[in-house]
Amino acid sequence: MPAMLIIYTTLRGRTGQMVAPIQEAIEGEGVSCTVRRVEEVTWEEMQAADGIIVGTPTRFGGIDWQLKRLFDVTAYQDYPGPLAGKVGGAFTAGSRPGSGAELALLNTIHVLLNHGMIVQGNAFGAHYGPVWQRGLTDEEIVETCRRWGHLWAHLELRLAGERPPAERAAGHH
Amino acid sequence: MPAMLIIYTTLRGRTGQMVAPIQEAIEGEGVSCTVRRVEEVTWEEMQAADGIIVGTPTRFGGIDWQLKRLFDVTAYQDYPGPLAGKVGGAFTAGSRPGSGAELALLNTIHVLLNHGMIVQGNAFGAHYGPVWQRGLTDEEIVETCRRWGHLWAHLELRLAGERPPAERAAGHH
Amino acid sequence: MPAMLIIYTTLRGRTGQMVAPIQEAIEGEGVSCTVRRVEEVTWEEMQAADGIIVGTPTRFGGIDWQLKRLFDVTAYQDYPGPLAGKVGGAFTAGSRPGSGAELALLNTIHVLLNHGMIVQGNAFGAHYGPVWQRGLTDEEIVETCRRWGHLWAHLELRLAGERPPAERAAGHH
Amino acid sequence: MPAMLIIYTTLRGRTGQMVAPIQEAIEGEGVSCTVRRVEEVTWEEMQAADGIIVGTPTRFGGIDWQLKRLFDVTAYQDYPGPLAGKVGGAFTAGSRPGSGAELALLNTIHVLLNHGMIVQGNAFGAHYGPVWQRGLTDEEIVETCRRWGHLWAHLELRLAGERPPAERAAGHH
Repeated sequence: MPAMLIIYTTLRGRTGQMVAPIQEAIEGEGVSCTVRRVEEVTWEEMQAADGIIVGTPTRFGGIDWQLKRLFDVTAYQDYPGPLAGKVGGAFTAGSRPGSGAELALLNTIHVLLNHGMIVQGNAFGAHYGPVWQRGLTDEEIVETCRRWGHLWAHLELRLAGERPPAERAAGHH
Repeated sequence: MPAMLIIYTTLRGRTGQMVAPIQEAIEGEGVSCTVRRVEEVTWEEMQAADGIIVGTPTRFGGIDWQLKRLFDVTAYQDYPGPLAGKVGGAFTAGSRPGSGAELALLNTIHVLLNHGMIVQGNAFGAHYGPVWQRGLTDEEIVETCRRWGHLWAHLELRLAGERPPAERAAGHH
Repeated sequence: MPAMLIIYTTLRGRTGQMVAPIQEAIEGEGVSCTVRRVEEVTWEEMQAADGIIVGTPTRFGGIDWQLKRLFDVTAYQDYPGPLAGKVGGAFTAGSRPGSGAELALLNTIHVLLNHGMIVQGNAFGAHYGPVWQRGLTDEEIVETCRRWGHLWAHLELRLAGERPPAERAAGHH
Repeated sequence: MPAMLIIYTTLRGRTGQMVAPIQEAIEGEGVSCTVRRVEEVTWEEMQAADGIIVGTPTRFGGIDWQLKRLFDVTAYQDYPGPLAGKVGGAFTAGSRPGSGAELALLNTIHVLLNHGMIVQGNAFGAHYGPVWQRGLTDEEIVETCRRWGHLWAHLELRLAGERPPAERAAGHH
């Protein structure tokens, strides 16, 4: 069973609230999902995971400094190589539209790509990852997180050579 | 009197609706403001302006192709130089949070910076320019457009060596 | 056999020179690779491909307007959906360091992600795709293009459930 | 006399080598220029400066984590407002073309814009700020740093209502 790892930090709690629906959606697809805060995750856990999803509060159009330190320092020790070929993804909570949430998301994705990770976009909603901004209801953000959890798990299964449960149930061969 | 130029195109009308409040706010500060659609603006008008504000619909995380053509082809004929030192800015209308509106805004700003233009951010609201996304009321988006119109006019006046009317009225010397 | 499609345009010929080594590397891995200029590619060809690699000259920190039109207009007709789940990638030729080549590359990748495509980074060299800038020898840029061709083909094969030839030859199971 | 502040950190010494030619060029235009490492700069110095130039090593397509912490934590205490209206700029040293140097530069500029700062591009060379990459000679990078130092000083003088020395000498009125 492929294993994913969510690493996050939260400023006012909203990024933290996005973790549970993402984790549940990933596990619902038959992919294990460990959750760690930025202060507690270990380099061994990062190397062991098949995919890493990073949750950052929107901080001045970029990734939170503690998460950046994780990649600049911790993940740098054996660079390049250890994270290459893993699935990567990001989610963020900003404030109002135009507050820099998308920039923070892409800044995070650029870090993951730099490490050689594999990232998928989504044509059907939040295109680059789940974004919480004012104007979305709680139901909408939970739904967005769930859809992205499914997408990440499906990508992980596809790369592992397995079909997602939904396709199996539907009889796709 | 400094002169600004708004160049825009619109897909479903929302980017177009942002033009009037921006123009009114700029003119309210004593800066003239001409509005042109991308199909009608001339290279002479662009060169004559002291500042250029570009309004683009959010198109796949980037500037609309017609506006890009304007800078890739029309503004390229005497490049580099003609637009250097002018004030630049951008605004966009996207759909829901995460739809790429901020990326489109910054992609547009990167084009303007590449031409040597001067861009200011805003610490107090939409940080990089007015962004219309679902979840903002009409009043909020008009207010955001007005504030950015003031900011662009103030920057224009400051670069022209004049104090904005508000500061004059308040007796700042 | 998975099928990739390279779509490109070139300003002074350098982006065009990057096409052949990328195509050869992709085909060398057992993946077919069709090449089309932006003026000649059809929407049917784009939909039929398992992966699309876009080559753009560096134009003011962004993708060339003709390529943008292809995605804004041609690929928009059945959006969202038709390109989702395909491999995506980009390459560019700029001038000197700082000329906007990386921004053009990422702007292009953001378009592909917006369409739901799958993008991989590279920890070992040019991190986001092949970039030609002054200071690289012809041998170096050909080598970079080849490595990226291999990476894209391997990703395509992995997603198609096949092992790349190199792994098969090495006896990996 | 306007006062600028350079804040930087360096990984292997190259970003640090860019500081002196930038500082000299700024001072040569009649603008004072203080230099501080990220560990030693104070919030009072940042608030007192008329302009802030940030030098970061290229770290995974983004700003160095220590510099990010400076803006996320130190500069956040009185946010929004204290840095608004100041001149901003960035420089970076990466490795080879495609190594993420431009992304790091723009990520840094996005932070400065988010704080309300004023940023200018350059049509004539490195468009977004000085970038050191393999393939540039020492003379070229020093020349690029000097030109950007002049540009930043001129923008500072223009915003302060003064003409740069070169324009005064040339008799422009």
